[in-house]
Amino acid sequence: MNSEIRPCIALTTDFGMDDPYVGIMKGVIFNIAPAANIVDVTHEIDPCDIQHAALVLKSSYSFFPRGTIHLVVVDPGVGSQRRPILVVTRDFSFIAPDNGVLSPAISDSLEFRAYHLMNRRFFLQPLSNTFHGRDVFAPAAAWLCRGIPPSELGDEIFSIVESPFPTATQVDSCRWTGEILRIDRFGNLITNLQSDLLFKEGCIPPTFRINIGGREISRFCLSYAEALVGELFAISGSTGFLEISSNQTSAAKLLQVGRHQEVILELV
Amino acid sequence: MNSEIRPCIALTTDFGMDDPYVGIMKGVIFNIAPAANIVDVTHEIDPCDIQHAALVLKSSYSFFPRGTIHLVVVDPGVGSQRRPILVVTRDFSFIAPDNGVLSPAISDSLEFRAYHLMNRRFFLQPLSNTFHGRDVFAPAAAWLCRGIPPSELGDEIFSIVESPFPTATQVDSCRWTGEILRIDRFGNLITNLQSDLLFKEGCIPPTFRINIGGREISRFCLSYAEALVGELFAISGSTGFLEISSNQTSAAKLLQVGRHQEVILELV
Amino acid sequence: MNSEIRPCIALTTDFGMDDPYVGIMKGVIFNIAPAANIVDVTHEIDPCDIQHAALVLKSSYSFFPRGTIHLVVVDPGVGSQRRPILVVTRDFSFIAPDNGVLSPAISDSLEFRAYHLMNRRFFLQPLSNTFHGRDVFAPAAAWLCRGIPPSELGDEIFSIVESPFPTATQVDSCRWTGEILRIDRFGNLITNLQSDLLFKEGCIPPTFRINIGGREISRFCLSYAEALVGELFAISGSTGFLEISSNQTSAAKLLQVGRHQEVILELV
Repeated sequence: MNSEIRPCIALTTDFGMDDPYVGIMKGVIFNIAPAANIVDVTHEIDPCDIQHAALVLKSSYSFFPRGTIHLVVVDPGVGSQRRPILVVTRDFSFIAPDNGVLSPAISDSLEFRAYHLMNRRFFLQPLSNTFHGRDVFAPAAAWLCRGIPPSELGDEIFSIVESPFPTATQVDSCRWTGEILRIDRFGNLITNLQSDLLFKEGCIPPTFRINIGGREISRFCLSYAEALVGELFAISGSTGFLEISSNQTSAAKLLQVGRHQEVILELV
Repeated sequence: MNSEIRPCIALTTDFGMDDPYVGIMKGVIFNIAPAANIVDVTHEIDPCDIQHAALVLKSSYSFFPRGTIHLVVVDPGVGSQRRPILVVTRDFSFIAPDNGVLSPAISDSLEFRAYHLMNRRFFLQPLSNTFHGRDVFAPAAAWLCRGIPPSELGDEIFSIVESPFPTATQVDSCRWTGEILRIDRFGNLITNLQSDLLFKEGCIPPTFRINIGGREISRFCLSYAEALVGELFAISGSTGFLEISSNQTSAAKLLQVGRHQEVILELV
Repeated sequence: MNSEIRPCIALTTDFGMDDPYVGIMKGVIFNIAPAANIVDVTHEIDPCDIQHAALVLKSSYSFFPRGTIHLVVVDPGVGSQRRPILVVTRDFSFIAPDNGVLSPAISDSLEFRAYHLMNRRFFLQPLSNTFHGRDVFAPAAAWLCRGIPPSELGDEIFSIVESPFPTATQVDSCRWTGEILRIDRFGNLITNLQSDLLFKEGCIPPTFRINIGGREISRFCLSYAEALVGELFAISGSTGFLEISSNQTSAAKLLQVGRHQEVILELV
């Protein structure tokens, strides 16, 4: 393996960093693929929260180098019949439990092939029932990184679990209802309303009203710094979704709202 | 040094990630050994908690590639007479303050050699009294990684501090008392009762009772998903110890127990 | 690029590790500079706290290998007119928004050259207004790492924003007033009083009094372990500043003080 290339393995898990679980997975990977370039996306997915992991993966995967192996371990069904899978798109590989966590990211690709990681020759032995991140997923990523072809890791499969990623609904010609997908560290509220709803008719956003938590927001800013400190506004977030934000203040605290809170957008 | 090999230095500290201490140690290591492959095990050891670090090390070290240097900095005695030591087993090297943190991991090895890291030529200068992670331990790991032989880093020593890692006690032919060693992010209670106590007479666990916090648990599951959500059960954890768990729920919250809580196992 | 060298890119941000922002920046960097050696200093800078980031940078940057690119993204002005800059000193490069975050670190250098990162050819496209860490700063660090000369990344500039890093004040010949810059994970209070104020007249600290939060401290220790558990004392911290500490106890909790608390030092 050419160390100039050092293929990336990008990790997204709900293991946190307090326990040694992530470190152990890295040890397993380097044991098999010493030249791998392991990159942490985040390990702070809310425990067992598949939708959260799906959002993180969808907003991050495409920024990695072509050939990156995205390894996602958020696995409430560990040890059950749920399948460990590998999905190969034109530019990336994805390894995860078959619980829907991959579908929002994969839906960007026109074509993909999927494999059921069932070849026990590539598992760690003895195989536990509680830590497939260590025994199944990390070794699969490492062997793939070493050049083992997908078809050796398992049989091709022709459907995977689809996750019902919450999408916004168009109510009438100028109204949509959506929800808060995520509140980030800065208190920005990431909605599932596509930013381009506001830009469809040109570069300047039309007049609009956003209703959320009993408040109405009609200000649009191009950057955080454009607003007064503490003022609420809509902004086109870095993930392609509209966000409700406040300059140097937490919009989540100002509005006292949480994830899944309904958001109504109206063009006026 | 061949970059194909990139020897691992695995870090376990109680420095957390809010302060720059871990980053500084990495800077020091790369300054000396640019090809090192530094891997974080965890930096969230409870401050000064040697027993916690010992458990993390014992459950993780063996998953790393042969030749890995395990660097453990949990060091309440920094600046005192406690010795910085290097322990070399057949497959791994361990660098830590001589406070017992290494003994549970090293006890797995039949033979080891230990060295007192006293050669000041390999310390950072000026040597502080408060940050030997930076000035003593990180440089030692880096020089070792560069190929400096242990005997140049310090004199061989013939005893190291043993940590009284809490082990379970056999009360009578079918009863053991142990304790909770650790509660992980998912609320799993990791005990110090070896899983094979339940498996001694075959693969199917015999009838048993576990008493903890006034509750009795007699269900055994092979995986989390096998149980109902919210049900308490015993499971063979990934570290070889019995764990008390609950599917997609925190067993620690259900039982309202903490670390060091007594656990009684009875085969019936 | 020779993988033996693997130039370091050291990251300091206020992005935290819960969101994928840091992982995305790393993906962007490896996309451009696959051989980069990315090292996390910390991502737990308090959101938008430029002074905190400046302190972290100043205490860590010099421990990294010569040639390291320090990338600091604490950027309340993202999307506004504040300039993205590159500062090149004899041994290091620094990339950050021009908001004063670099000045305490750069003030250690006799000479430096600064550049306004304005060449959009090296930005990610489309350029967002909310995530220049991804679109401007990470690519600049990666291209610099790849060998693009600073003058191609932008025009040279001849002044940068200076941050008023709080410095201690000498009140009279034997009295100084300073403040708490930072409380670390262990509860150590890092002041802005230089340790060598106590050492000027030799190696043994003279008699002194420190007043903080209504308490008087006159004990000096060379190491934490020298003091009784729970005793308050002054110590020469690893960053060159005096710290108020307590052995295996949080001095911050004992004194019930926070950041910016006044500290008065008197030689007696």
